[in-house]
Amino acid sequence: MGKNLTKRSEDYSRWYNELVVKADLAENSGVRGCMVIKPYGYAIWEKMQAALDAMFKETDHQNAYFPIFIPKSYLSKEASHVEGFAKECAVVTHYRLKNSEDGKGIVVDPEAKLEEELIVRPTSETIIWDTYRKWIQSYRDLPLLLNQWANVVRWEMRTRLFLRTAEFLWQEGHTAHATREEAIAEAETILKVYATFAEDFMAVPVIKGTKTEGERFAGAEETYCIEALMQDGKALQAGTSHFLGQNFAKAFDVKFNNREGKQDYVWATSWGVSTRLMGALIMTHSDDNGLVLPPKLAPIQVVIVPIFREDAVLEQIRETVSPMIEALKKRGISVKFDDRDTQSPGFKFNEYELKGVPLRLAVGPRDLENGTFELARRDTLEKSVVQAAGIEDKIAGLLDEIQENIFEKARKFRDENIREVDTYEDFKKQIKGSGGFVSAHWDGTAETEDRIQKETKATIRCIPLNPEATPGKCILTGKPSPYRVLFAKAY
Amino acid sequence: MGKNLTKRSEDYSRWYNELVVKADLAENSGVRGCMVIKPYGYAIWEKMQAALDAMFKETDHQNAYFPIFIPKSYLSKEASHVEGFAKECAVVTHYRLKNSEDGKGIVVDPEAKLEEELIVRPTSETIIWDTYRKWIQSYRDLPLLLNQWANVVRWEMRTRLFLRTAEFLWQEGHTAHATREEAIAEAETILKVYATFAEDFMAVPVIKGTKTEGERFAGAEETYCIEALMQDGKALQAGTSHFLGQNFAKAFDVKFNNREGKQDYVWATSWGVSTRLMGALIMTHSDDNGLVLPPKLAPIQVVIVPIFREDAVLEQIRETVSPMIEALKKRGISVKFDDRDTQSPGFKFNEYELKGVPLRLAVGPRDLENGTFELARRDTLEKSVVQAAGIEDKIAGLLDEIQENIFEKARKFRDENIREVDTYEDFKKQIKGSGGFVSAHWDGTAETEDRIQKETKATIRCIPLNPEATPGKCILTGKPSPYRVLFAKAY
Repeated sequence: MGKNLTKRSEDYSRWYNELVVKADLAENSGVRGCMVIKPYGYAIWEKMQAALDAMFKETDHQNAYFPIFIPKSYLSKEASHVEGFAKECAVVTHYRLKNSEDGKGIVVDPEAKLEEELIVRPTSETIIWDTYRKWIQSYRDLPLLLNQWANVVRWEMRTRLFLRTAEFLWQEGHTAHATREEAIAEAETILKVYATFAEDFMAVPVIKGTKTEGERFAGAEETYCIEALMQDGKALQAGTSHFLGQNFAKAFDVKFNNREGKQDYVWATSWGVSTRLMGALIMTHSDDNGLVLPPKLAPIQVVIVPIFREDAVLEQIRETVSPMIEALKKRGISVKFDDRDTQSPGFKFNEYELKGVPLRLAVGPRDLENGTFELARRDTLEKSVVQAAGIEDKIAGLLDEIQENIFEKARKFRDENIREVDTYEDFKKQIKGSGGFVSAHWDGTAETEDRIQKETKATIRCIPLNPEATPGKCILTGKPSPYRVLFAKAY
Repeated sequence: MGKNLTKRSEDYSRWYNELVVKADLAENSGVRGCMVIKPYGYAIWEKMQAALDAMFKETDHQNAYFPIFIPKSYLSKEASHVEGFAKECAVVTHYRLKNSEDGKGIVVDPEAKLEEELIVRPTSETIIWDTYRKWIQSYRDLPLLLNQWANVVRWEMRTRLFLRTAEFLWQEGHTAHATREEAIAEAETILKVYATFAEDFMAVPVIKGTKTEGERFAGAEETYCIEALMQDGKALQAGTSHFLGQNFAKAFDVKFNNREGKQDYVWATSWGVSTRLMGALIMTHSDDNGLVLPPKLAPIQVVIVPIFREDAVLEQIRETVSPMIEALKKRGISVKFDDRDTQSPGFKFNEYELKGVPLRLAVGPRDLENGTFELARRDTLEKSVVQAAGIEDKIAGLLDEIQENIFEKARKFRDENIREVDTYEDFKKQIKGSGGFVSAHWDGTAETEDRIQKETKATIRCIPLNPEATPGKCILTGKPSPYRVLFAKAY
């Protein structure tokens, strides 16, 4: 049985959509724009959560939980925030259904209308800052470093599994600080956490930078971001960390007594990554045979497929591999022994390739005689015959090697696809062609940014952090520019 | 500084409400009926989640995630289910806000009305069984053993932190099986998992049983439950596991080819525990000084309070305890060294007593000289002076002892508060008096159950599993009854 997967070169977008479904990661539900995350996809997300959560805790953050509903009036308190979220939100207006008069169905009970409508949270700054007002009185209460793992809803019109869904899962950090400097340092700390996570766990190389004013989070003074490059030459924003200034403290009247005994507004940050990261993970590494997963996030790191006709052989194989499985599990390596007799080895090979299991071991009667395994790497598709003796060390070493290899491969691709361009002609050609990051001069105005976007669909993905001074001229207007910024078409 | 905590004997309900807030577990939010779970409370919930999740995985369950919204028509498909949930649900009717005409605020945009209203999930049977229809074709696809960790909303009118809130966090398992027997076995397996978790981790003794028809889950053929007894003599339902028969498979047309090649409807279970367990945990063990936490769920298991005036002494203490802290952490014991100089030792003692930290070590200049610590147990409030040498073993042993001790204490209380009663007179006296579980004969009819509830507020908490045949006469009607059932007033 083949995988019937569209090739990336034929239709990258279709390849992605098919892969997400065929690899059992997620699918669309009966509710417009909302996805079902299937067990295999959710197992990857759980591994991402566990790694990130440990990193948050190492940097002194604690988890908490705030209500899913936001009263309409809260949303309105920060002007640019409501502007950013009001146009696409789920509004709860009633709290009861009842039987219809004709007895044929159930309808909303008009008598159960809420006095004030509730919004299903698109993000939680407002409800959290309304709470922080009660928690913060003095500099002794600061910093307050909280995170929550939650679902959020944004009523997107055009949705795609993981990349853009009406409901998605994420974490949102919300911190409160006594000074501007501390808050900025926090936003930058988290940016580093995100970049480290993306590179060390997801094996996705990222560029750290800040957003232009037009691309900032609604209510932020500065938005930091990590940007990744997908195989089709489009960029993907993988995480953002916002310095919110005193905007939310002012909107929700959160003041504190500072060390000098004076009242001041509290400084804030917020930051988040979401199930969108699943999209980045898939699109960075996978190939025409299916998923390629970094070993650190693979729910199954090693699969063992027995080759057998008779049950007696299966039992021999089981006896041979059992001590190895135990030894691998002791090292924290997850192993699956697929002893199903309802599927052929070829079917299983295909299935685990599609699902991106990093290492596959096959063992049949001849291997039993020879004390060997057939070993296949998912990243390179290389096969080799290896000795059973010392195989645990070999496997542990190979998992590290695969993690490193797919990161290097992605980094090489990314680096080869950052191009400096100095004329608008070349810019348009590059964006229309193979895409990638285009490093170009920009005059710093929203007008130029908008016009470039309208004409090419490319946006400024970020202003790289601490850019070198490399004065030049804006590709569109020719006005002076102090350094290059990164443009790309983006997900 | 005292704790200003109402005594249990004065007002148990007020004691509970105060404790939840003062111990930093949770508080009410600005959204009616929705709580904020504070970091300390959430840390306990995280430990509960981790333990339960491991038990689910050991019993071959996988996690997944389904949409938060349920189309109104889905809810209507199972008749008793809609009956049970339609009267208290949050209904999303619109997907956009806009600026009001007078420019003074934001209002719901009447043009952004949903064609079909969406319900914020009160439970997920309907959306999940709508999905299972696509996943299940053959007996080879069964059993399907899934769980999700999620938030749910039920529009309760009278709410109390953790015990009854409009939004709460829970896990909901939803499994699909080829036979009736398998599904019943699954519901019973989960009941055992819940009981083991409650007793071994929460140190809360529970009684396993089944619900009467009137108390069953909306859509279930059988509801299994675990029931705990709180210190005020009221029962608390701590978890339920439902055998759903083929009700949802029929409502959502989920058929499969069985081993005989015939089409049949799939058999189902669902089961859940929620943040309500936090209420059970608090009310089972805590005392007039504050929380008492079982060591297995305590976010901080050991706190070390240095007694110092000069910084030099603090540094000496830090040097002395550092190797011990490292040694404890290596054993997986969580330790906090509270070196704040803004609070007195007495304040800290109070705080950790209020927060239920199982063991407290105090160390001052004299202890440094003598090589000793002052050790205080939260459960018994006993203090002793212990030698620093070998203290890690002592602490590990004591944590086990405390876990065991609070369970035994709760079990003794529970056992002393199960009383057999044979007349309605005695029944009413007992329920009005110290409460507890009243073991009594019942004629098996809903009418009798209802009348007893109306007259005494007591309900049948459960029919104990595999009841001994002990024929007798119903306390109310005198009709024959095959065995005793457990009545109580309940949360």
